[in-house]
Amino acid sequence: MSLVPADSAFLDALAAQLPPDTLRAAEPRHLEEPRGRWQGHAAAIALPRSAEEVATIVRACSEARVALLPYGGGTGLVGGQLVPKDGGAAPLLISLERMRAIRAVHPEENVLIAEAGAILTEVQDAAAEAGRLFPLSLASEGSARIGGLLATNAGGVNVLRYGNARDLCLGLEAVLPSGEVWHGLRRLRKDNTGYDLRNLLIGAEGTLGVITAASLRLFARPAATGTALLVVEDPAAALSLLARARDRMGEAVSAFEIMSRTGYDFLAETLPEVRQPFDTKPEWSVLIEVGLPQGLDPATALEELFAEALEAGLVSDGLIAQSDAQAQDFWQVRERIPEANRMIGAVSSHDISVPLGAIPEFIPEGIARLKRIGEFRVNCFGHVGDGNLHYNVFPAPGRSRADHDAERDDIKRVLHDLVHEMGGSVSAEHGIGRLKVDDLERYQDPAKLAAMRAIKDALDPGGIMNPGAVLRAR
Amino acid sequence: MSLVPADSAFLDALAAQLPPDTLRAAEPRHLEEPRGRWQGHAAAIALPRSAEEVATIVRACSEARVALLPYGGGTGLVGGQLVPKDGGAAPLLISLERMRAIRAVHPEENVLIAEAGAILTEVQDAAAEAGRLFPLSLASEGSARIGGLLATNAGGVNVLRYGNARDLCLGLEAVLPSGEVWHGLRRLRKDNTGYDLRNLLIGAEGTLGVITAASLRLFARPAATGTALLVVEDPAAALSLLARARDRMGEAVSAFEIMSRTGYDFLAETLPEVRQPFDTKPEWSVLIEVGLPQGLDPATALEELFAEALEAGLVSDGLIAQSDAQAQDFWQVRERIPEANRMIGAVSSHDISVPLGAIPEFIPEGIARLKRIGEFRVNCFGHVGDGNLHYNVFPAPGRSRADHDAERDDIKRVLHDLVHEMGGSVSAEHGIGRLKVDDLERYQDPAKLAAMRAIKDALDPGGIMNPGAVLRAR
Repeated sequence: MSLVPADSAFLDALAAQLPPDTLRAAEPRHLEEPRGRWQGHAAAIALPRSAEEVATIVRACSEARVALLPYGGGTGLVGGQLVPKDGGAAPLLISLERMRAIRAVHPEENVLIAEAGAILTEVQDAAAEAGRLFPLSLASEGSARIGGLLATNAGGVNVLRYGNARDLCLGLEAVLPSGEVWHGLRRLRKDNTGYDLRNLLIGAEGTLGVITAASLRLFARPAATGTALLVVEDPAAALSLLARARDRMGEAVSAFEIMSRTGYDFLAETLPEVRQPFDTKPEWSVLIEVGLPQGLDPATALEELFAEALEAGLVSDGLIAQSDAQAQDFWQVRERIPEANRMIGAVSSHDISVPLGAIPEFIPEGIARLKRIGEFRVNCFGHVGDGNLHYNVFPAPGRSRADHDAERDDIKRVLHDLVHEMGGSVSAEHGIGRLKVDDLERYQDPAKLAAMRAIKDALDPGGIMNPGAVLRAR
Repeated sequence: MSLVPADSAFLDALAAQLPPDTLRAAEPRHLEEPRGRWQGHAAAIALPRSAEEVATIVRACSEARVALLPYGGGTGLVGGQLVPKDGGAAPLLISLERMRAIRAVHPEENVLIAEAGAILTEVQDAAAEAGRLFPLSLASEGSARIGGLLATNAGGVNVLRYGNARDLCLGLEAVLPSGEVWHGLRRLRKDNTGYDLRNLLIGAEGTLGVITAASLRLFARPAATGTALLVVEDPAAALSLLARARDRMGEAVSAFEIMSRTGYDFLAETLPEVRQPFDTKPEWSVLIEVGLPQGLDPATALEELFAEALEAGLVSDGLIAQSDAQAQDFWQVRERIPEANRMIGAVSSHDISVPLGAIPEFIPEGIARLKRIGEFRVNCFGHVGDGNLHYNVFPAPGRSRADHDAERDDIKRVLHDLVHEMGGSVSAEHGIGRLKVDDLERYQDPAKLAAMRAIKDALDPGGIMNPGAVLRAR
């Protein structure tokens, strides 16, 4: 039995079960995705105000066999947020933008309860107002919503210390494909009562249910924060530096990002307003941030680390931020590289991870294998402390991305094969969506893939929830 | 179709597919559990040497509809490790005690790969030899095995800082009920390629597959560790003290355990060799351990915390360990309370958690409600920083546990109802096993329970994996 489009009879019947103005026409923004690969279509968008209304919508879709697609902030990079026009019947979108309340903050418990439609910065701000930290932080934090961040198990720059979105969630309220509301908003650190449904929904990209609210972990704000940009010999030296930093400061190392010379070049070329921190652009450099307990001065701690690393031949130069403004300048370098990349125009972008120990081999081997295809520039940067690199391939100077259209599939295959050989992941933080369904089928362990299919069929026998994302629609 | 006993024809046919001496008669130790509630039975025990042999065993059981029960270190407290004689057909046990290798240690990645039969202390030692920390630590660490620790999502004394077993696992190798080997031993910090099968198997108590190896997270060893025993006014003061400690030291607070006067009394009565740290036994006290970065002296940090808490009226007395020996003395007080409890003889033991903010209300309210049933002594102690209390009920002096046999069910019901009202969990760290199947059905959210059943039926349609644990056998 295949899915049917949400027609006007279905929409009228559903609208009659809901308060006025819950169903609307989808806006153009709901049918696009940031990289412009696809154009979506939708019969309508539902804007419910409660989990019970979500349940009503899910039940109606289930009975009528209409596809339901949870739409978060629309910032996903793998097409999980739309059904392409040629990719299946027109779905009903569901956005929880009317459910964006911070339901409760428990600073003494380090817990915050947010509805799924809350924007990430709103959650960060509510935590800060209570004197606490919600550490999830990424480029799209001004528009990404909690429901989508959890559904995609978002990463970002603080994973090294605080983990992915998964690690920041204590409990969920969600509507399962059966139309039942799971009231799982627990505020517990320990709860061994049955299967881990929470982590199953987190990262399932809306294919196993609709997250409506979450119980989130907060943290004490570090007493003092320090930031440095250090020039390292190569990626191997960067990893040795990280190990030494952790031996000295443990989990206090909260970010450790690598940048290559190409990143600095792209910034100079496209965004001259970004201050270049070094007179000579370094081949490899790392941005390190530490958040330390009371009694330690971050600048001193970073100076001592620098002195030790200099002695060991791991670093050759470095800048330790002497003010918040300088720290922000350093972060600008790191955070605006994606913008510079877009202006240069990548042939192909890869969000991959490999075991930390494999990074020094992976980076040059990737370049060597690409050379067999053609002449490219590679901008490799990112969360090296997590083994997560954004490995982006650009045309050689004087050529455009269009010149390489025919090679895009080969580039992907070569790089993903290499990642797979090294025990890595072809989607470190962006998820599968619709873009990487083929990759998942090619690289994922067959036993796990079969288990995923069995779980999907068991929880969503009608296949209504975000069909075609993660697993191929049936 | 119900399960059948593993008869001699089945065992002979299976033995023929395996190396000699893989199947044996179960020993008495395999048919007991620590609290002596049940006596198990088994047709035999399989002692495989590889994941492939485990797969052969799983397939044979699946085809013959024979129950298969993964047996770890046998230390579980809820009967997950045995099928009682009156609780179903005689199963085949499977123990991975021959698969106890540390397959690899990657100190530079903070990763260790252990087979499921490795004893926890062996993993701790291998990490220490590499200059790293594997932080999982609990009373049974000398006999508990990694497979069982993961299958039950074990907790222990370092959860506050490092999380449960779940949080310490990066990847699994496991045999699924289909008999397929899932090769999921990844060493990645970020991997968003599909549903979270790892966390589904972790905590499933052997009902969804047999874990054969795990990729585990290691940590830098804290540069210096400090321990203190502080006398607090009441549990509310303990929680305020914890919040202040975290504001000062963040995640460096690695353990925060509460003890009541009853614990000290029980120790004095049954284990006089345990040194009593205070001249007057405190009504409430906490053991705090901190592991600090380089540059901070733990004794000084704890003295400053004590001074601040004294000023705020949260603590009235305290001891800061001046040596490792003294720190061990403090830990002895905490860690030998369970032994003292056993010697006194509990009427009823409860491994519960509630939201941190509910603890100050929960403790006296539990005592008040118990008073309506009868006269009891309560020893409430444990991982208060995690909201996890071991809330154990004892006869009044002069009476024995047998005097209260008729009240045991009422006690459990009263306490678990209270926990549930407060948004807590009736099994914080011990799991469901066979002991708490009724509790799970009573207190778990119906939508989650239905999803659990659907997942179990989808992954293990024959119901062979540890039948009767977590979910009722069909």
